[in-house]
Amino acid sequence: MSQTDTDRYLPTPRTTPTRARHRVAYDRDLVHAILDEGWLCHLAFVRDGLPAVLPTLYARVGERLYLHGSTGARPVREAAAAPGGMPVCLTVTHVDGLVLARSAFHHSVNYRSVVVHGTARPVTDAAERARAFDAVVDQVVPGRSADCRPGDVKELAATALLAVDLAEVSAKVRAGGPIEEPDDLDLPHWSGVLPVRTQYGAPVAADEGRRVPLPAYLAAYAGR
Amino acid sequence: MSQTDTDRYLPTPRTTPTRARHRVAYDRDLVHAILDEGWLCHLAFVRDGLPAVLPTLYARVGERLYLHGSTGARPVREAAAAPGGMPVCLTVTHVDGLVLARSAFHHSVNYRSVVVHGTARPVTDAAERARAFDAVVDQVVPGRSADCRPGDVKELAATALLAVDLAEVSAKVRAGGPIEEPDDLDLPHWSGVLPVRTQYGAPVAADEGRRVPLPAYLAAYAGR
Repeated sequence: MSQTDTDRYLPTPRTTPTRARHRVAYDRDLVHAILDEGWLCHLAFVRDGLPAVLPTLYARVGERLYLHGSTGARPVREAAAAPGGMPVCLTVTHVDGLVLARSAFHHSVNYRSVVVHGTARPVTDAAERARAFDAVVDQVVPGRSADCRPGDVKELAATALLAVDLAEVSAKVRAGGPIEEPDDLDLPHWSGVLPVRTQYGAPVAADEGRRVPLPAYLAAYAGR
Repeated sequence: MSQTDTDRYLPTPRTTPTRARHRVAYDRDLVHAILDEGWLCHLAFVRDGLPAVLPTLYARVGERLYLHGSTGARPVREAAAAPGGMPVCLTVTHVDGLVLARSAFHHSVNYRSVVVHGTARPVTDAAERARAFDAVVDQVVPGRSADCRPGDVKELAATALLAVDLAEVSAKVRAGGPIEEPDDLDLPHWSGVLPVRTQYGAPVAADEGRRVPLPAYLAAYAGR
C-alpha cells in the first residue's frame, strides 16, 4: 500500500456522502481519535428486511472494533446464526456544540462522528475473547480491567463479543461558528455557539461491601 | 381504547426484548420524557439490503416525530422515493452513569433509551412543514424558533422533514448501583457509579454582525 493508503480509509460508495462532502474525512488518525474518545455506539442491523438500531458498548483494538452484548441479545444471536457474519453499520457521535444562526435554516450542530460499515462476527477464540472483554472495560474506564475481578468461565460464556474490522469507515466533522446570510448579519438575534460536552460527576460509592479508597484512574474523572 | 392502551404503547415482537425484560417499559409518559430531553437520534434504515445508521436531529410533536435533513441526504431521498414511506428504526439514548462493579462481568451503564420502529414519510403539507421546522429548532433550544429569521421559500424547499408516528415504541432504563456477586463484596476494588451527563458551557457569540445581548432562554444553559 502507498503511504496514502495506510493513512486513510479508502472511500466507497457507502462512505461517500451525497451532500456536505467537505465535512467528510477518511484519515485513520482522526477516525481512531473519535472512536477512542467514546465507548457507546449505535449499532444497526437488518432483521427480517427491516432496520434495527441499539446502543452498544464497544472497544477499538487496532483496526478492529469489539462490540459487547449478552449471548441472549438479538443482534448477537443473529450474528452468531448468520453464515459469514451479520452486516452491520455503527455510528459513534460526539456533540461539541449547538450552532445558533440568525436564520432558522443555518442552525446546526457541531459534532464529530464516525460511521463504520462492515460485518460482525462472534469472537470465538478464548484468548481473543479475554482480550476483547478487557478492552471493552478499559474503553469505558481506562485502567479498570486490571482493578476488578476477571470474568469466570460462566460469566465469559454469557458474554458475547462481536468483532467488526475497520475497513469501510468515514468520519464527519462540523466545527466553528454559524453560517450567516450576508443580509442577516444585522438582524436582532443572538448568534453563536453553545458548547456541549459530556461531564463526569463525583463518583458515588456503592453502599454494600468493603469500602475501598477511590483509585487514581477514577479520581481524575470527577468534574471532568 | 382502554385506559391501559392510552397510557402505554402496545408491545410487539420487535419491541419485546429477548433479555433484561425488567428494564423495558412502554409507558407513554416515560417515552415522551426521554424523547423530550434529547434532540439527537440515531436513525437506521436499509439500503440495498444492508443497514445504515446516521445521527439525525428530531422533534416530538404529540405522537409524531419529525426528522430533519437536507433534501440531498441519502435517507431523505430514499424515503421520498419509497412508495408508502421508508421503514426506519431510531434510537434516542441518554447516558446517566458508568456502573463499576467489583467484577468485570457486572460492569454496566446507567441509561435511558427509546427505540422507535416505524415508517418515515416526507412531510409535504406546507403548514405542517413550517410547524415541523420550528419544532426541530425548538427541540434543540426551546424558544429559539421565535427568535430567529424563519426559513424563506428557498430554504424551506432545501429542508427535508420526515415524519414517523409513535406506535411501535419501547423505553429501556437501567438505574442504580452495581450488581455484585455475594462472594465479591470483600474484594479490594472500588465499586459504585460515576455519574455522566450532558453539560452546556458558556455561550460563545459569533464574531460577525450585530452584537445582541444573550437572550434569557440561552443564559439558562450556561453551566447547566
